Amino acid sequence: MNTIIFGTVAFDAIETPYAKTDKIIGGSGTYSCFSASYFVRPQTLSAVGYDFPQEFIQKLKDKGIDLDGMQIKKDEKSMFWSCRYFDNMNQRETLTTELNVVANYKPILPDSYKDTEYIMLGNGDPVLQRTVLEQLNHKPKFVALDTMNFWMDTMMDELKKTISMVDIIIINDEEACQLSGGERRLSKAAHIICDMGPRYVIIKKGEHGAMLFSKDKVFSAPALPLENVVDPTGAGDTFAGAFIGYIAQQDKTDFETLKTAVIVASAMASFTVEKMGTEALENLSANDIKNRIFKFKEMTDFKL
Amino acid sequence: MNTIIFGTVAFDAIETPYAKTDKIIGGSGTYSCFSASYFVRPQTLSAVGYDFPQEFIQKLKDKGIDLDGMQIKKDEKSMFWSCRYFDNMNQRETLTTELNVVANYKPILPDSYKDTEYIMLGNGDPVLQRTVLEQLNHKPKFVALDTMNFWMDTMMDELKKTISMVDIIIINDEEACQLSGGERRLSKAAHIICDMGPRYVIIKKGEHGAMLFSKDKVFSAPALPLENVVDPTGAGDTFAGAFIGYIAQQDKTDFETLKTAVIVASAMASFTVEKMGTEALENLSANDIKNRIFKFKEMTDFKL
Repeated sequence: MNTIIFGTVAFDAIETPYAKTDKIIGGSGTYSCFSASYFVRPQTLSAVGYDFPQEFIQKLKDKGIDLDGMQIKKDEKSMFWSCRYFDNMNQRETLTTELNVVANYKPILPDSYKDTEYIMLGNGDPVLQRTVLEQLNHKPKFVALDTMNFWMDTMMDELKKTISMVDIIIINDEEACQLSGGERRLSKAAHIICDMGPRYVIIKKGEHGAMLFSKDKVFSAPALPLENVVDPTGAGDTFAGAFIGYIAQQDKTDFETLKTAVIVASAMASFTVEKMGTEALENLSANDIKNRIFKFKEMTDFKL
Repeated sequence: MNTIIFGTVAFDAIETPYAKTDKIIGGSGTYSCFSASYFVRPQTLSAVGYDFPQEFIQKLKDKGIDLDGMQIKKDEKSMFWSCRYFDNMNQRETLTTELNVVANYKPILPDSYKDTEYIMLGNGDPVLQRTVLEQLNHKPKFVALDTMNFWMDTMMDELKKTISMVDIIIINDEEACQLSGGERRLSKAAHIICDMGPRYVIIKKGEHGAMLFSKDKVFSAPALPLENVVDPTGAGDTFAGAFIGYIAQQDKTDFETLKTAVIVASAMASFTVEKMGTEALENLSANDIKNRIFKFKEMTDFKL
């Protein structure tokens, strides 16, 4: 199954208390595509500039990622973002955001994307997220949406319009609280958000795992307790990419399939944070993934 | 199997934003005994005063709780504790603590308790916790210990001596951080605590569930998402009582049994918070418990 991944492909530079990168390949779309590539053929929807190295493009191609929807603008520079993590790795400050090519970017679906059934709308302007859906030839089987507090602060009405068109929204606990109008009880917040349109809500809780809600069901996935988090960048995008990738691979959207998808997504995200940037994500074997998913089974399974 | 529950039996008065009790039956030993009584015959080890009503004693007896180890002091008053919860129910302030009979209490094991194999040492003075173990005729099969930051602040050396004698310690995330010398990563904190003697550590995370650690294994249990928490008092004591009760009932102490015990304990605690005081705990059917445990299975089970 093909899967459209709408999100940025960009340069990142990351600094943690223990390590520092040069300009490396980054962006939400990159992490999501790498992650989804273990399950399906991701169709990237993004834009880069003339300065984006062939080497980085080759990295994406090597993972089987479809780049037909990646615009390469000859007169613009690629997006660049840099950040520094504080000691506890839970907080970071953005040092630089140079939007460059992303500033005036409008996603344009190549014809080969227009019949795709599974769509991941990465965090971004909710109006642009909608234009992706509007270019499809049909109503897709499953649309997942990532967003963040910035869009709630600045474009809540547009965001709600987009939310009403998707099957699942993937957000963190703080964002769920804000989106639900201040509800701190996660299950209640999830139900309020379901009433906005989505059939499902995933609430990510960092080291406390993630929860999947429908109107009448709930599933709880733990996070793997990691003693050495090297770089949290891209964990959420990895989660989103693996989630939609697994569902597309299975070509099923029932609650049982989504439960397993949340575990697969959590497992993939646990790899990302173990190395700098996309390094861990680029080099996984099927066995690595199987063994990691099995750790989640061991960690949650009990006999009655 | 008999199970010694060392903990206070006392008067409580509880005020929440929505309800207020008179003097009701409370205390860590009471919650733990009620909870354990669904699995084994709890042997209470505590003291009350002349003012403790026959009606309350009858409540304990009605649940099959062995009161041979409950001293009734004719010239002292029972312990009384009252508290008020703030709006979010996550924080409370203690309004009154009248230790009374508890101030000079020394636990004395009746002969009928001295061969008991399963012991729950409820939160309290670590020197007194040790005297319980010292009165046994033998080394018991399994000893669980609850403690809190107060004992870490005031008697860390004594506490560590007691910790070295038990099989499992049940604490919350803040306490695990303090006990491990400031380690915020839970798995690392648990390993540091295991090096102090216990084979196992349970770290409770409130609405985020609980984790069970051994030196080389980990298990994660979610909390049930509850929309209506009526009174959090005694949730931890309920957890501890059900945990030791289930293990004693199974008469097994391997990791697999402990995993199920953590789920059973989480299920029992979820009942306690749904009503004021011990009300919910006093009136459960076997079916109520079975159905609640099954909810945890549904919430965590996934197919591979």
